[in-house]
Amino acid sequence: MAPHPFKILSLEETRIARDVILSLHTDAVIDFREIYLQEPPKELMKQYLDLEHAAKPGHSPTSKRPPRLALCQYDVVGTDKVAHYHESVVDVEQRKRVRHEVISKTFQPSLSPWEFERLVNACKQSPEFQSAVAELNIPEGFELVVEPWPYGPVEPKYENKRYFQGLCFAQDLRNGNPDSNFYAYPLPLIAVMDAETQKIVRVERLATGGKGDGLTAQTRGPRVLDHCEPAEYVPEMVGGGLRQDVKPINITQPDGPSFKVTDESLVEWQKWRFRVSFNAREGVVLHDVHYDGRSIIYRMSNSEMTVPYADARPQYARKQAFDFGDGGAGACANNLSLGCDCLGAIKYFDAVIIGNDGEPRVHPNVICLHEQDAGIGWKHTNWRTGRAVVTRMRELVVQFILTLANYEYVFAFKLDTAGGIGLEVRATGIVSCVNIDPGKTSNFGNVVANGVLAQNHQHIFAVRVDPAIDGHNNTLMYEESHTAPWNEETNPNGNWYEIRKTVVDKSGGLDANPFDNRVFKIINPSKTNPKSGNPVAYKFAPLPTQKILAAPGSVQQRRALFTNHHVWVTKYRDGELYAGGKYTMQSQTEKNGVHDFAARKDNVTNDDIVLWSVFALTHNPRVEDWPVMPSEIHQIHFKPSDFFDRNPAIDMPNTKNPSSVLVGSGCCEQKL
Amino acid sequence: MAPHPFKILSLEETRIARDVILSLHTDAVIDFREIYLQEPPKELMKQYLDLEHAAKPGHSPTSKRPPRLALCQYDVVGTDKVAHYHESVVDVEQRKRVRHEVISKTFQPSLSPWEFERLVNACKQSPEFQSAVAELNIPEGFELVVEPWPYGPVEPKYENKRYFQGLCFAQDLRNGNPDSNFYAYPLPLIAVMDAETQKIVRVERLATGGKGDGLTAQTRGPRVLDHCEPAEYVPEMVGGGLRQDVKPINITQPDGPSFKVTDESLVEWQKWRFRVSFNAREGVVLHDVHYDGRSIIYRMSNSEMTVPYADARPQYARKQAFDFGDGGAGACANNLSLGCDCLGAIKYFDAVIIGNDGEPRVHPNVICLHEQDAGIGWKHTNWRTGRAVVTRMRELVVQFILTLANYEYVFAFKLDTAGGIGLEVRATGIVSCVNIDPGKTSNFGNVVANGVLAQNHQHIFAVRVDPAIDGHNNTLMYEESHTAPWNEETNPNGNWYEIRKTVVDKSGGLDANPFDNRVFKIINPSKTNPKSGNPVAYKFAPLPTQKILAAPGSVQQRRALFTNHHVWVTKYRDGELYAGGKYTMQSQTEKNGVHDFAARKDNVTNDDIVLWSVFALTHNPRVEDWPVMPSEIHQIHFKPSDFFDRNPAIDMPNTKNPSSVLVGSGCCEQKL
Repeated sequence: MAPHPFKILSLEETRIARDVILSLHTDAVIDFREIYLQEPPKELMKQYLDLEHAAKPGHSPTSKRPPRLALCQYDVVGTDKVAHYHESVVDVEQRKRVRHEVISKTFQPSLSPWEFERLVNACKQSPEFQSAVAELNIPEGFELVVEPWPYGPVEPKYENKRYFQGLCFAQDLRNGNPDSNFYAYPLPLIAVMDAETQKIVRVERLATGGKGDGLTAQTRGPRVLDHCEPAEYVPEMVGGGLRQDVKPINITQPDGPSFKVTDESLVEWQKWRFRVSFNAREGVVLHDVHYDGRSIIYRMSNSEMTVPYADARPQYARKQAFDFGDGGAGACANNLSLGCDCLGAIKYFDAVIIGNDGEPRVHPNVICLHEQDAGIGWKHTNWRTGRAVVTRMRELVVQFILTLANYEYVFAFKLDTAGGIGLEVRATGIVSCVNIDPGKTSNFGNVVANGVLAQNHQHIFAVRVDPAIDGHNNTLMYEESHTAPWNEETNPNGNWYEIRKTVVDKSGGLDANPFDNRVFKIINPSKTNPKSGNPVAYKFAPLPTQKILAAPGSVQQRRALFTNHHVWVTKYRDGELYAGGKYTMQSQTEKNGVHDFAARKDNVTNDDIVLWSVFALTHNPRVEDWPVMPSEIHQIHFKPSDFFDRNPAIDMPNTKNPSSVLVGSGCCEQKL
Repeated sequence: MAPHPFKILSLEETRIARDVILSLHTDAVIDFREIYLQEPPKELMKQYLDLEHAAKPGHSPTSKRPPRLALCQYDVVGTDKVAHYHESVVDVEQRKRVRHEVISKTFQPSLSPWEFERLVNACKQSPEFQSAVAELNIPEGFELVVEPWPYGPVEPKYENKRYFQGLCFAQDLRNGNPDSNFYAYPLPLIAVMDAETQKIVRVERLATGGKGDGLTAQTRGPRVLDHCEPAEYVPEMVGGGLRQDVKPINITQPDGPSFKVTDESLVEWQKWRFRVSFNAREGVVLHDVHYDGRSIIYRMSNSEMTVPYADARPQYARKQAFDFGDGGAGACANNLSLGCDCLGAIKYFDAVIIGNDGEPRVHPNVICLHEQDAGIGWKHTNWRTGRAVVTRMRELVVQFILTLANYEYVFAFKLDTAGGIGLEVRATGIVSCVNIDPGKTSNFGNVVANGVLAQNHQHIFAVRVDPAIDGHNNTLMYEESHTAPWNEETNPNGNWYEIRKTVVDKSGGLDANPFDNRVFKIINPSKTNPKSGNPVAYKFAPLPTQKILAAPGSVQQRRALFTNHHVWVTKYRDGELYAGGKYTMQSQTEKNGVHDFAARKDNVTNDDIVLWSVFALTHNPRVEDWPVMPSEIHQIHFKPSDFFDRNPAIDMPNTKNPSSVLVGSGCCEQKL
């Protein structure tokens, strides 16, 4: 059977794509970056999915099947030793390239892990860098660690250059533990590598001062780590040892999970039905989400995230990661493990990644799928009879976790038994930090440990939702609740408030307004709820969070125009997936991001629309965020609003859970 | 051993208090309302607690023990048959009344369940009401249901009257099920009872029109229920039956819970230590909350909630419940049951309630205490070695649930392993609804089923937190993050943002400002974090929710002045516990509520301060909220901010949970 059009490329398909590319560039060295599924144009998919949903379960349409396409990203290194970045699309069934583009130097491709390795090697081979390290008098038993980072916004004078920067730390290896936390010993040094020559072209000596010291003053003493202190988090090294009194909470599913996964990608659970895929850029993608046979979402994914830092010192002004555009969620995804990252009966999904020779391999357990109890779903006690009916809420969680150097992000799509669908993001990991002189404090962050300044920063997320509320033609509107004017006829007691409805008719950016209870609704204007007479809808309250703080016109702001609004609505076009633009590495302005899509001022009523949700965590670190920060949690949630004709969870059984036990004056005395 | 001063009154103590009151009023009938613990003055408690914390574990101080006091609320019905409301405080050890007050008629006591019963009886005995019911032609097999409600804001002309109102529904009893949902059949009728005479004094015939019909037009046909339809939620009656594919998720704690409860009120768990109590007004109260021997909170409770409705029709302008002040959380608390309201190893706490004869009895299982897993607590993968360390977040939940006629609220205090403490509120139950003519829609709500208009309304909550951050003298400040001006010296690249700090020096009201990332900090100005140099603090971001929508100057707004701000800070005074004032029944303005406390403009720096958090849910019902609404969840969260010298959860073990299983192509194939 031919693979479903949303299914990720298999090892075999990936290999075919690679071979096609290699066969077309026999006179050059090919340095592969990524190969992954090029999703079919929506028009083709609509036809295919219509047939699929009309077919008997388990039967795939044989006609209207779109071609299987592989997006191949690679450098072509010619005899001049210069790498030119190419993108090709290969039809893997026809074994034929169907599109080919040489990308101009103004656009930089995402980073590859092997570029990071080259930076570490270049540092080793740079006498200038080594002598700068020597100046720092790293104590006996400590070793240098170079942490590769994307360069950030490139200065205009370097526009066609590709750089990487290495942040430096020292690791205390006196006890021989390779997981001793090196972030506790930051070194005031950055190495910059030219990616083309693979040589260190600049060594930057960083200021370590505090308030009043100026941005570049070299104030440090001869030994920059002497006032630093250990900050261990691996269990065998935690200061004071681990707590011993955490008794296990076991989650068991004796009859197995309530979900079913078939065809490696089709998930069915509690009237929900969707496809799950994974790609190098966005990580997990949900496709063709239905509930009880009705369409809700065509595609949902994490589109972008940017993390600008607020340290004014010139080298740190470059600290601004685009974690999806620069890094790519695929390569950075954790390989999850049972009993740690989620509990219960867990289904893992693998992905495929490639080496720089294009050889594909399995990237195991990058997605986990499980159910979880989410507390009381609904309850009512009849006050006349005393009879209580209480049901649980249950969620299906599709989770992946990224590690980007010091930080981690846990992304979890959650579908629930009340027809809701949302995204939870947990930010954890280690805050990015730099050396600060003993006894000083700073305007740029918080001193979280001796010698360690954790810099203030923001995490700004963009989620892309391509809705299909009972079909592809939808409209975005918002509703606000407003105090109504006193009026003897209509509001004699002043208690009435009115709901004002606004249709968004042109693509553009909009903002959260929680104080007027602004709620966005994605409606299908052609379908009416039989009870209320309103158009069927899903609603969503954008998170009322702070926008980007970098000054208007600053490069940090210009390259992240998507952060200008909490909500964007655009008219669908194939390929418009990335809020911050396709190429974010070293960008100076956002190009072909959501700001540009919205600027077309397209009609977006009763049309194929895309919704973008932007939210931020302004993160001014606490001492408690050190050495590994407790998860900071953000959630967005879409819920049905006159989409169904009653509470879709009203048919949840109110079974007593038989595993619960009473705790008496001792413990666990009585079983139910 | 003498009971701890925060412990609720025992049955025996309650009975003593009752007997003392009865012995002082031998010439009258005493109609009791409530008897519960009068908490000791804080000055006495501070001395006692200092001794307690200095004593060996398990040893109580014998000196400085405050007296055990009972607050007794009751009506004295003299020979004139008129009820006069009294409040007394009885020293139960001395068996002696130590305070006595006759409350003026301008203040109405909270309602008692027996007043509700009297209303139902009065309806039965009122020919006027019965004839109004007869007009409605209730179908054969249906029975009248009168649902008692507080009267709401009383009209000035009735100032000294005490009223109750009965909302009317019909129950379909043709199948003999007493839990058939009567809210599906609302009757356009309200009965008003004078509480003194216990007679129906007014029968109101309600309008049933829609948009354009005017507020009082009698538009209904001769049979008002014929277009209504069943809306069953009890499992044996749910239309279409229950779903069969929800497989169990069992939560087991083979080694028992990690918490310990001693002295019926002292809870110790994961370095946390606090007392729990329960009273008729606020429900659960947490006292003397410590972490690792350090004080954080002196007292935390739900203080008030008001629910104003937005239907402009005159009778509905009275629909405004104060669920704590009018109803009282104690009497309305559910008796929780194992395996339904929470899962795992559950400790229940009982309370004591009285009948109107003052006879106390056990109110079982009103609080449940349990631990729950809350997902990934923190994670980091060392990118150099690939080693992942992942720990779980765990929460201790102290939960109680109220049923107030149609609605339920689930209140859960949550303490967590990262030093956080918060409150989660879930609103569920059945939306309040009224009859609407066939085919019409309304400006006052949403038609959620044929004939059923669910009225728009707000739920506005007030939580009272009496902090004690490393001692009782604290200061409230707030911090905002602001774009910093471009400046060649201090901000050459525009990426810096500054944190502005404002100390709140006088008691008053403040607002949420999420767009500037406004974060409130309760600091102890006398204690400095050794790492950052900042004062130790707990921080809190108020929920940016809508304020009350009833027009300024309307009675709905005047009697709920506490809803004017998201945050209040006041200087501590004994007895100032209730945000909306002590007497909310039929109130026309808020008196002695937080607005008045704040208006004193007391000094609140380095002083004993109290923080009040107000947040709202503007609830414009969806069809999906019918017939029982899925939980709407709100949470506030206090977290340490430079209170500790590292992540307090860094010592959580990263044990793999052995109960998790892999789901393969079949299910549960492989155990860890």
